[in-house]
Amino acid sequence: MTEARAAMGRIFRAREPRGLGEERVEGLAELAARVRELTEAVVLTDVDDAEVAAVAAQVAELTARLNTARRQEPPSIEFGADGAFRHLAGPVTGRLNPIAPPVEVAVHEDGTVRGVFTLNAVYEGPPGCVHGGVAALVLDHVLGMAAAANGTPGMTATLDMRYRRPTPHGVPLTVEAKAVRSEGRRTFVEAHITGPDGKVTVEATGMFVRPVH
Amino acid sequence: MTEARAAMGRIFRAREPRGLGEERVEGLAELAARVRELTEAVVLTDVDDAEVAAVAAQVAELTARLNTARRQEPPSIEFGADGAFRHLAGPVTGRLNPIAPPVEVAVHEDGTVRGVFTLNAVYEGPPGCVHGGVAALVLDHVLGMAAAANGTPGMTATLDMRYRRPTPHGVPLTVEAKAVRSEGRRTFVEAHITGPDGKVTVEATGMFVRPVH
Repeated sequence: MTEARAAMGRIFRAREPRGLGEERVEGLAELAARVRELTEAVVLTDVDDAEVAAVAAQVAELTARLNTARRQEPPSIEFGADGAFRHLAGPVTGRLNPIAPPVEVAVHEDGTVRGVFTLNAVYEGPPGCVHGGVAALVLDHVLGMAAAANGTPGMTATLDMRYRRPTPHGVPLTVEAKAVRSEGRRTFVEAHITGPDGKVTVEATGMFVRPVH
Repeated sequence: MTEARAAMGRIFRAREPRGLGEERVEGLAELAARVRELTEAVVLTDVDDAEVAAVAAQVAELTARLNTARRQEPPSIEFGADGAFRHLAGPVTGRLNPIAPPVEVAVHEDGTVRGVFTLNAVYEGPPGCVHGGVAALVLDHVLGMAAAANGTPGMTATLDMRYRRPTPHGVPLTVEAKAVRSEGRRTFVEAHITGPDGKVTVEATGMFVRPVH
């Protein structure tokens, strides 16, 4: 993984990953989880106007408290001892990011990346269904992870989505991605999302290009 | 627009849009804006562990207050007198959704859909850049709006993304989409995101299919 790590280093060259201790990560992940729940409550609340305004004012106070000490940049990535990396605050798998579902992802020995996730009404497009663009967001991310797991990390160059049927929200979904071939700096990766009935709802192919310097 | 409205009605047939008064919408939009700011603060905060835990506990209390009266579904769409619709709580343009940037979109007479937006660190992929999947999320949404503006609304069938250069975050971006042709139930739409230097960062083509019943 040393070469892959060097390539990731080139992509993330602008930033020296700063390690966060496990305890710190857990505390921030708890906070992000609470804000994720708050976000869903905001989208679904039916409390009266006065209560909406009162809660909004209190949210502003909490924001001010968190902003008394502020990083310049999010805690973006950390490298593990095995060269694997965690995108702690990314919008898809980042446990520290309230807008991430988050998708829980595992990288398997054969380079397959598998994730499980449930999307709530916050991610809704058509009623009862996941927004098609949210499916694209999740697929782009796991495609990129599979390119990295293949030892050929890169930036997305093209992403082709095929929507087979609606993706329901509020139920467990799985996503799976695997690199299918590499040609020079280009790596082609395929992925799909599967609903609880085992049927593929969305398929995607991504082409990733390794940075040269 | 009557036919287009009927087609939107078929897509959204599971739900009778319930009108929210302007005052109600403004109050909920304020709350969502405050939670959007809180979300950014969570991703960037550097306050100590005790304060992180204290804020998390208070967020949970606010969530409980909002959940004392809860809708079954988000306030998804509303039709205007002109047949146009607003996706109030959608994850891209929805002012009532804390995860939406939100992208502010205008539909022009010639059917072009134009939006302006700024994405913060919450939407980050590579350092300083917008996550490629977030660009896909935004483009899918405006492509769908342009299909509807063309009088041929539909569900996304395919979405092809071409990433030309990194999309920076923290700066104003524009997105533009327009239907280029229709064949039977299929409508082809093109869109792109432009950075502050006027250069296109990402291009997309979408094919939308009108529902038949």
